[in-house]
Amino acid sequence: MAIKGVLRAGFIQMRVLNLDEAVQYYRDVMGLDYVDKTADGRVMFKGYDEFDHHSLTLREAAEPGLDYMGFKVESAEILEEYAKQTAEFGLKIEAVPAQSDQPGFGKRYAVDLPTGHRIDLYSEVELAADHPELTNPNIWQHEPKGIGVTGFDHALLFGPNAKDTVRYFTDVLGLSIVEIAKAPDGENNLCVWLTGNNKAHDVAVLEFPEPGKIHHFAFKLESWNDIGRAADLMSINNIKIDAGPMRHGVTRGQTIYFFDPSGNRNEVYAGGYAHFPDMPVRVWDFDHVGKGIFYYSRTLNDAFLTVVT
Amino acid sequence: MAIKGVLRAGFIQMRVLNLDEAVQYYRDVMGLDYVDKTADGRVMFKGYDEFDHHSLTLREAAEPGLDYMGFKVESAEILEEYAKQTAEFGLKIEAVPAQSDQPGFGKRYAVDLPTGHRIDLYSEVELAADHPELTNPNIWQHEPKGIGVTGFDHALLFGPNAKDTVRYFTDVLGLSIVEIAKAPDGENNLCVWLTGNNKAHDVAVLEFPEPGKIHHFAFKLESWNDIGRAADLMSINNIKIDAGPMRHGVTRGQTIYFFDPSGNRNEVYAGGYAHFPDMPVRVWDFDHVGKGIFYYSRTLNDAFLTVVT
Amino acid sequence: MAIKGVLRAGFIQMRVLNLDEAVQYYRDVMGLDYVDKTADGRVMFKGYDEFDHHSLTLREAAEPGLDYMGFKVESAEILEEYAKQTAEFGLKIEAVPAQSDQPGFGKRYAVDLPTGHRIDLYSEVELAADHPELTNPNIWQHEPKGIGVTGFDHALLFGPNAKDTVRYFTDVLGLSIVEIAKAPDGENNLCVWLTGNNKAHDVAVLEFPEPGKIHHFAFKLESWNDIGRAADLMSINNIKIDAGPMRHGVTRGQTIYFFDPSGNRNEVYAGGYAHFPDMPVRVWDFDHVGKGIFYYSRTLNDAFLTVVT
Amino acid sequence: MAIKGVLRAGFIQMRVLNLDEAVQYYRDVMGLDYVDKTADGRVMFKGYDEFDHHSLTLREAAEPGLDYMGFKVESAEILEEYAKQTAEFGLKIEAVPAQSDQPGFGKRYAVDLPTGHRIDLYSEVELAADHPELTNPNIWQHEPKGIGVTGFDHALLFGPNAKDTVRYFTDVLGLSIVEIAKAPDGENNLCVWLTGNNKAHDVAVLEFPEPGKIHHFAFKLESWNDIGRAADLMSINNIKIDAGPMRHGVTRGQTIYFFDPSGNRNEVYAGGYAHFPDMPVRVWDFDHVGKGIFYYSRTLNDAFLTVVT
Repeated sequence: MAIKGVLRAGFIQMRVLNLDEAVQYYRDVMGLDYVDKTADGRVMFKGYDEFDHHSLTLREAAEPGLDYMGFKVESAEILEEYAKQTAEFGLKIEAVPAQSDQPGFGKRYAVDLPTGHRIDLYSEVELAADHPELTNPNIWQHEPKGIGVTGFDHALLFGPNAKDTVRYFTDVLGLSIVEIAKAPDGENNLCVWLTGNNKAHDVAVLEFPEPGKIHHFAFKLESWNDIGRAADLMSINNIKIDAGPMRHGVTRGQTIYFFDPSGNRNEVYAGGYAHFPDMPVRVWDFDHVGKGIFYYSRTLNDAFLTVVT
Repeated sequence: MAIKGVLRAGFIQMRVLNLDEAVQYYRDVMGLDYVDKTADGRVMFKGYDEFDHHSLTLREAAEPGLDYMGFKVESAEILEEYAKQTAEFGLKIEAVPAQSDQPGFGKRYAVDLPTGHRIDLYSEVELAADHPELTNPNIWQHEPKGIGVTGFDHALLFGPNAKDTVRYFTDVLGLSIVEIAKAPDGENNLCVWLTGNNKAHDVAVLEFPEPGKIHHFAFKLESWNDIGRAADLMSINNIKIDAGPMRHGVTRGQTIYFFDPSGNRNEVYAGGYAHFPDMPVRVWDFDHVGKGIFYYSRTLNDAFLTVVT
Repeated sequence: MAIKGVLRAGFIQMRVLNLDEAVQYYRDVMGLDYVDKTADGRVMFKGYDEFDHHSLTLREAAEPGLDYMGFKVESAEILEEYAKQTAEFGLKIEAVPAQSDQPGFGKRYAVDLPTGHRIDLYSEVELAADHPELTNPNIWQHEPKGIGVTGFDHALLFGPNAKDTVRYFTDVLGLSIVEIAKAPDGENNLCVWLTGNNKAHDVAVLEFPEPGKIHHFAFKLESWNDIGRAADLMSINNIKIDAGPMRHGVTRGQTIYFFDPSGNRNEVYAGGYAHFPDMPVRVWDFDHVGKGIFYYSRTLNDAFLTVVT
Repeated sequence: MAIKGVLRAGFIQMRVLNLDEAVQYYRDVMGLDYVDKTADGRVMFKGYDEFDHHSLTLREAAEPGLDYMGFKVESAEILEEYAKQTAEFGLKIEAVPAQSDQPGFGKRYAVDLPTGHRIDLYSEVELAADHPELTNPNIWQHEPKGIGVTGFDHALLFGPNAKDTVRYFTDVLGLSIVEIAKAPDGENNLCVWLTGNNKAHDVAVLEFPEPGKIHHFAFKLESWNDIGRAADLMSINNIKIDAGPMRHGVTRGQTIYFFDPSGNRNEVYAGGYAHFPDMPVRVWDFDHVGKGIFYYSRTLNDAFLTVVT
């Protein structure tokens, strides 16, 4: 295979204020497949187009926000190699046993990023029970429900020391920088978008005073038409829309930002370009960042840089 | 970067019967950017969304068909490594000097495949003059013309010893097998689809008695809507449509097959799933191949297995 | 109101070979709303976007085909006026009592057309129980199911004396001729498309030796995207597709022809232009009729002029 | 024909601050066909899908805004009948000679509405030189340019005595009320949408203290996909977007509000439902008007009720 090292952002565990309400939302409105409940009461989901056991876990807590996101890597050997290099890079790293708190997952390593986020690295996940067909497949194994997101796509992390987190992503995990938004000084970076594959981004990191914050996590849709239908269903289901339907200048993706019932910002995302590592990096000057994020209104909305969980 | 080795099928040189007619077709109808003419009278094109100097070269000749397709690899080091492994695999391989017959291209290696096709490997290509913007980019540097294909996507090769060509692609070039159509015996493969990235395929190989044949080469479009608009423009421009608009079961892509003025089969392609190397291979039994190729009519059309150039 | 006289083709009763199978198909695959069963065992349906009690009735019979289609007119006064003029025109006409064999329908007049078809005229229909919302409406009252057709659109009738049927439609019912396909002689008409409103057609009439035949009846969809999704669902549900997804040159509509389980040809139709009575008529020479019907392949398929019910 | 009386809103004359700038915008960005300049320096445009000589005239003036909009009626006889009834209704009405200030137009009547707007009634317009093809037509006679609007659709008028203007539209011109937004008192109407055909609206009237104001005039597009592409082109061309891409709850149309270089609000509009005069009226309570106009954000934006020309 020619995709090596980190395959993709493949997993995220989020905190929600009310689990029942969140389950109703992520299952019936977003259209994720409900996988199962863990022994300690968390709920696992996946997109109908994903093969891994699950890609989202919800945990009830007093505050919304990110527990951690996971990156799937190529092999057990590479996993151990990354663990070694992570420790050498100077980050705290801890092994998590296989089949422990994330059913279906093999051994993981939990890494504390300079921005105050935890990410987990893992190489093995059991095949989901309800995965896409493999023999004479139809285009789906069951008709998508609700908004019908196909799977987890990426997250945007807010925290201090963004430069160091980005350096870890590129130098240790081998992610490519796809786009950069410059800070007002024109020297430092406000935000960096990174990927391990052809997706326009697996993760983005924005310099922010508070550690461990998440701006949004995103689910995939196939087209602008699906984005419009998603907006229709959001209105019908009284989902609070933050911005969109619109296009990002960054990645060229078509998108809606909106909030889950706990206040975590979600995104549905379609149509970004395919990144290859031989592409030059695209750069946004600070005074064009509004257009980079909100390609149609061309101004940052107030909530964008301030509302996080 | 996490995409290693072969980045993608990045180039193709095709023979056409009448160069002027072909230029009119590929530039004005397909909407490729005309790059330049070579010293020996061939014409180079690229999609507006591609960064490399060119991705298609047309050569006037008495017979239509494929001269060779090219695969871009990660680095000059990997290129030399592949050259060595190719020779060890037992295929004829020859170096082509940089900036020779393909302006803008660095050193290449021409490899003779068991199926009678030539492919070229290369690692360095100059940035095209008219590439996507890099600073505060708009979604395109100039409005797409005609059908507005964004770039070269993949080709389907027909020839004998397909098994050996596939083995070379996987064992030496590290491509992943994405889907397989079985032969009537249920053991051998009729057709194998392979990729070096998240694209559903860079190349496919079908067992066929005559060597060196090409079934079609494909250009990318963004959506089913663009597929429909392409069909409108084909009708308006009297382009002969072979099949579609339709969906493939294989890769789930949305597609039209049609012919250039020389009888080379083209495809416009959108919307296949994103492949990752940890996905299981999808397999089509021979009696479902009709549905695999023509998801709507569910029967192979007569031309599919017989009309090639 | 400025739409007068005939409002639209609003109803059709079709014969099917197996009622249970037909109900499963029209309800679960096409996505019509099941309204009720009549006392004599026929089943009534409507599209989710229609207000009238029902728009399709299925009757089990030994042969598939058309019982009759209905045209809704502006008022009871106009209905009586049309009855009078129909008799004067020389066609057999018979009153059908309100609330008789079509529950929810007021008084109808059954007219025998020169082409051997029966059409019914009516002016009053009860509001369906499950109609679009009227106060602070959402875009639908329940999420569309299956292919999700929004309602009945038009039918294409085949029979002898087409000229006289067309003359009745224009001179008595006041329909406008929208497009004409000429016969090989260049004088007579092969097919005439007519409408009573802005729809590109309510009904079309094609000269054919056998009386009372129906080529297809069509349901509305909103866009090319819905047409593509319909084709996906047809394949998944093993529905036999006759032609498409494609565009008609005639009316510019985007379309699929396919067959119900009894062999009645259905169509899903989107995107035709809005007709106004001040528009000139568009005319197709006989040797362009292929392009008129099959805008992409530009040749009549064999089944088009021969397979009817 | 079954569409009688008023056929449609077919014409509008608008004031712009700078004619050259406006021509560049309406021709190159909106994609209207430039028809000609009048002797007194006004510029005429039409959509590529319209048959009449022109549908938009721009006049340079010190203030932007509406000169008048025109309604095309069925025949010269009906025109005279409406003139008589308009006078009887008590409105000031004046004849405008054929081929005078609007080249290609027959006799018109200019009517002063109670809301302070002028509308013109007319029945005859010459066929445009560059109209859709009539013999073996392609889907367009020339490829649409820019945003590619197909024609003029409707306007929203703001003024006092809206009730009387609405009464004139219904009682004299025979328009149907399609939707109503109630005033805060729950009794009076804030806004009424009316049509003379199947379009969801030809004109809407909103109660407003200042007479003769226009909120926006709208052009047709075919689909949500075209709406998205329009937004892309607006951003690339630095057009100021007021709201959207979004859906209206009212009429269910998909839409963008934006401003021409003179500050006149434009709309591109696609996908509303087909109105028939036997449909019940849909009503919005005042506290749901936000959702009625801005179906996704569900709140009136500040500019909506205040920014007019």
